[in-house]
Amino acid sequence: MSSLSISQRGIQMPASPIRKLVPFAEKAKENGIHVYHLNIGQPDIETPPAAMDAVRHNHMRVLEYSHSAGNESYRRKLAGYYNGIGIDVNHEEILITTGGSEAIFFSFLACLNPGDEIIIPEPFYANYNGFAIEAGVKVVPVPSSIKDGFALPPVSDFEKLITDKTKAIVLCNPNNPTGYLYSADEMTTLRDIILKYNLYLMADEAYREFCYGGTHISAMTLKGAENNVILTDTISKRYSACGARMGALVTKNKEVMETVLKFAQARLSPPGFAQILGEAATELPSDYFDGTRAEYKNRRDTLVGRLNAMEGVYCPNPGGAFYAMASLPVEDAEDFCKWLLEEFSYKNQTLMMAPAPGFYATPGLGKNEVRLAYVLNTSEIEKAMDCLQEALKVYPKKPAKLV
Amino acid sequence: MSSLSISQRGIQMPASPIRKLVPFAEKAKENGIHVYHLNIGQPDIETPPAAMDAVRHNHMRVLEYSHSAGNESYRRKLAGYYNGIGIDVNHEEILITTGGSEAIFFSFLACLNPGDEIIIPEPFYANYNGFAIEAGVKVVPVPSSIKDGFALPPVSDFEKLITDKTKAIVLCNPNNPTGYLYSADEMTTLRDIILKYNLYLMADEAYREFCYGGTHISAMTLKGAENNVILTDTISKRYSACGARMGALVTKNKEVMETVLKFAQARLSPPGFAQILGEAATELPSDYFDGTRAEYKNRRDTLVGRLNAMEGVYCPNPGGAFYAMASLPVEDAEDFCKWLLEEFSYKNQTLMMAPAPGFYATPGLGKNEVRLAYVLNTSEIEKAMDCLQEALKVYPKKPAKLV
Repeated sequence: MSSLSISQRGIQMPASPIRKLVPFAEKAKENGIHVYHLNIGQPDIETPPAAMDAVRHNHMRVLEYSHSAGNESYRRKLAGYYNGIGIDVNHEEILITTGGSEAIFFSFLACLNPGDEIIIPEPFYANYNGFAIEAGVKVVPVPSSIKDGFALPPVSDFEKLITDKTKAIVLCNPNNPTGYLYSADEMTTLRDIILKYNLYLMADEAYREFCYGGTHISAMTLKGAENNVILTDTISKRYSACGARMGALVTKNKEVMETVLKFAQARLSPPGFAQILGEAATELPSDYFDGTRAEYKNRRDTLVGRLNAMEGVYCPNPGGAFYAMASLPVEDAEDFCKWLLEEFSYKNQTLMMAPAPGFYATPGLGKNEVRLAYVLNTSEIEKAMDCLQEALKVYPKKPAKLV
Repeated sequence: MSSLSISQRGIQMPASPIRKLVPFAEKAKENGIHVYHLNIGQPDIETPPAAMDAVRHNHMRVLEYSHSAGNESYRRKLAGYYNGIGIDVNHEEILITTGGSEAIFFSFLACLNPGDEIIIPEPFYANYNGFAIEAGVKVVPVPSSIKDGFALPPVSDFEKLITDKTKAIVLCNPNNPTGYLYSADEMTTLRDIILKYNLYLMADEAYREFCYGGTHISAMTLKGAENNVILTDTISKRYSACGARMGALVTKNKEVMETVLKFAQARLSPPGFAQILGEAATELPSDYFDGTRAEYKNRRDTLVGRLNAMEGVYCPNPGGAFYAMASLPVEDAEDFCKWLLEEFSYKNQTLMMAPAPGFYATPGLGKNEVRLAYVLNTSEIEKAMDCLQEALKVYPKKPAKLV
C-alpha cells in the first residue's frame, strides 16, 4: 500500500541559499535597522520606460495563448538583437521561455537522461542544482579559485572528471556569482574540450551586456561547435526586468530545438505581456546599455576598492556581471552574515550578503567567502562598506591566521 | 565516450495532439478557405477590460522579482475568491504559478518519484502526459466511456489498477476534453478511494466557473481529505486570459506546500504583469461570470443539438467547461479531421476539430471520436456544423456499420 509522502527530489531540493537569511533581515528591519541588500541580483536600475510603455499601451481585446515558441514578431526582432552583437541566428533558432530559468531546465530535459552528469565550474549559480535535481541529473563541480580570480580551471581538471555519463558543461559568462569574464583563449579551450568529448555546452549569458573592459565571447560564436552549443538567455538583468520572466533558448542544433519545442508545447506558451516588453526592448537605441554599463562599472570600482582596502579582505576585480566574490577574515561566512543581521548595526544600519558556500557544490569550499551584488548606487555601497568595515573590527569569530 | 544525443524523455515526449494538424489548417487558409477552429481551448471571450486596465495603468519603475510564491496581496485576494465559492483556504495555502501547467508539474515533482504511477480517467488533457514524462511518472488510464457520458468509472475499475506504486489520482472537473461535470456522489466515491489507499487527489478545476445546471463540487471541499488534495488552478479560462500564464497551486498539506515552494524558488518568481491582472480580476463584480456562463451554455446547446441531429453522430450533453466529445460515423477521426482540412470545403469553408485518440492513453480508444471546443459564437458554430453535416455526407471512409 502506498503512503502520502514527499518525493525524494522534493526532499533533496535545496532551499534558496540567497533567501535563507531573509527572516533575519526581516527581524532586523522590524527592529528599525536599515539593511543594505547586497545579497540578491535584483537591480535597482529603471526598467526601460519605452518597453514598459509598450505593455501599458497594448490594445489586446483577448489575451490569447502565443505560439509555444513565442511570438514570431518577437523572435524575429530578438534575432536582430543577436545579429547586432555578432551572434548569427535566425528566429527559428530561438524559442522564447519563461525566464532564463525555463531555458536552463528545458536544455536539461531535452539533452540529459536521469543519471547523466554535467560539469560546472564552481562556485556556480545555485539554482542549477535545483534544475538538476528536477531533471535527475548529477552536477559535477570543477573548482575554480579566488586566488586565480576564478579563471577557468585547467583542461586537465575537466578531463579528470569526464566519464561515460558526462553529457554537458554548463558555463555562466560573465559569471554569477564570481563576475569572472572568460577570455577568448579560455573559450577556445572550452570549445576544444566539448568537441573532443562530444559534449553540449550550455551557455548562460544573462549578463553579457555588462562587461567592463574585456570583450564578451559568446559561446554561440565558437567555430565548429555550432551543434554543441545551447544558449540560455534572459532579459531579466539586461533590461532590469526580472519580474517579467522572459528568457530564450537559442541553438543551431535542430534536433535539440525540435525536442525543446515539445516541452514548450506542454506548457502552452510563454507569458504574454512580457513578450510585448521584450519585443519593445529590442528596439531601444543601440547606446542604451552604455549608461547602465557605466553605472555598474562605477559601482564595481567603488565596491572592489573599498573591499580590498579592508584588512584581511580580498576581492578579485570582476570583469563583468554585477557580482563580486570576496574572502573575509572570518571563520565562517554564513555565521558572519547571520551575525550582521542579528547582532550588529552601525549607525542603525547593516548589510546583507550571500554566504558563498551556497554557490559551491564541494563541501568546505568558500567557507570564508561571500558574494556581493552591486545593485545599489555608489553612495549606498559606500555606506554598506562602512558597515562591513566596522563589523569586521568587532566580529568575535576571527580565524587564528588570516587566509 | 559520451555522444551528443537527445534524452529519452525528449524522444518520448509527444507532440501536441491538438496542434499537429495545424500545418494542414494553414495550407487550407493559404488556399482561401475559411477554417472554423473548434480544435483548441482558446476562448474568444473578451479578457475583462478592468483587469487589462490594471496592467495598463501600472506605475512600476522597476519590474522586480516577486515573492517566489507570488505577491502576498494577490494571494490574499485570491483566498477571498476561493472563500467566496466555499473553498476554505488562506493565502499561505496558495502558491502562484506560471499557468495551471506549472501547478500540475510542481505537484508531480513534489509528490511523485520517478516510476510512481498516477491514475487518470481517460480521455484526459493530453499535456498530463508531457508533465508525467518530464517527471518520470507513469500515467495509468482508467477508461470512461462516451456511452455513459464519460461518468466516473466504477470504484472496482480504479481498484484493479492500484499498486504499490500508485501515489495519486488526477481529476479534471469539469472535464477537459469531455465536459463532464462530476456529481456529489462521484466526488464522495473518489474521496473514499483516496482515503482508503492514502493517495493524493490532484484536482484540475480550471473550468469550475462554467457549469450549466449542475453544481461544481471542488475537491478542496471533500471532508477528511484536506491533507490529500492538491488543487491546480488557472485564470486562463476563467477570465479568458490564456496568454497571461497565471495559475495557482492550492493545498492545505503543509509539507507539500513547503516542498513546492522550493521548486518555485528555483525558478525565482511567477510572471509579474500577469499577477497584476490576476489580482484585479479577483475584484470583478460577483455576477461577472453570469454573462460568460450564459454565452457558453447557448453555444453548448447549439453545438450539441446540431451534432445529435446528424445521422450517426452522438454527443453526450456536457455539464461544464467548453468542450464536447462526439462520436462520428467515420472509421478514423484523425483521418477525417485531416481530410476536412486537406480535401473538403463547403461554401469555401471548413472546420478543424481535435481527433480524440490524442486524449486517450489506451491505444485504439476514441478512434471515431473528436473533441469540439465551443469557443466561437453561435452563428459561427452553426456555420461550422453546416460544414460538418455536408462533410459527413461526402466523406468516403465510412464504417461498415454505424457505431
